[in-house]
Amino acid sequence: MAVYTGENCSLARTLEIIGERWTLLIVRDAFYGVQRFADFAAHLRIPRAVLSERLALLVSAGVLAKTPGAGRRELYTLTDKGIGLFPALRALVAWGDQHYAPDGPRRHFRHADDNGEVDLAGVCQLCGKSLAVRDYLVTTGPGASPADASADAVTRALATPRRLLEPITP
Amino acid sequence: MAVYTGENCSLARTLEIIGERWTLLIVRDAFYGVQRFADFAAHLRIPRAVLSERLALLVSAGVLAKTPGAGRRELYTLTDKGIGLFPALRALVAWGDQHYAPDGPRRHFRHADDNGEVDLAGVCQLCGKSLAVRDYLVTTGPGASPADASADAVTRALATPRRLLEPITP
Repeated sequence: MAVYTGENCSLARTLEIIGERWTLLIVRDAFYGVQRFADFAAHLRIPRAVLSERLALLVSAGVLAKTPGAGRRELYTLTDKGIGLFPALRALVAWGDQHYAPDGPRRHFRHADDNGEVDLAGVCQLCGKSLAVRDYLVTTGPGASPADASADAVTRALATPRRLLEPITP
Repeated sequence: MAVYTGENCSLARTLEIIGERWTLLIVRDAFYGVQRFADFAAHLRIPRAVLSERLALLVSAGVLAKTPGAGRRELYTLTDKGIGLFPALRALVAWGDQHYAPDGPRRHFRHADDNGEVDLAGVCQLCGKSLAVRDYLVTTGPGASPADASADAVTRALATPRRLLEPITP
């Protein structure tokens, strides 16, 4: 990892872990319910060696937990520490949506119970509740592509509304 | 920049710009009021070639604006687009404070008018106002080091409370 000599700074330490673009995309996919190596690889089109390294880093940092799944496949799931990254991820996505989504956001975040929009602070604009991450639905927005329905398994799964953290098991 | 083939995703585009650890530390420093090349370099201890490249990237992305300063020095200041990164930065710092600041946060964010704590959504916990970034004070927290008072000019300036975005001109 990079050395921030003398950097007594929470941000520097945070960026040592997630301050690499692939890493945050992997974390994003974990919120979407991706758990298996092959699904991260297919969805992100990330070289397998890089994916291995990033997953190992996230496990060693306690952001992801690795557990045995069916058929010798290992599953990667967000820990509570990892789930704590949601507000930062949400804020980054919102900034990107504002500046780099000419057709509008590709995904919306809604309250699973009442389909209300959820603001950046995690409050449902319909019922006023402060939501846990598991209470969010991710739905498609105007920037989603019709081609998503015939893309990789993860993109296909995300073409219909689903709860965050609900496992995608194509 | 990295190629995210088929990545029709605001987060991927955002990370193409700020998804590199130095870049986000530069943006953080710009919120603290750092404006001059030499001050970024001294505070971050970043190689000058890397700093040049990152500043140019941030200017071309419209996150920073480059303007002429006194004595042929150029000044880098956050644009409105750049200031829009504050919620994401704040959330990342908060996550780092929670997990990587055993002595407590190095910096606190407070409302300049009444010294109230400001929550992650930007609301002063004392007066209830929703704050603009210019209304924040950055103050030292328990994780700050007494050595800060004799460190580089930026760290010294941050050893006393100051408003975000107020130029640091050592």
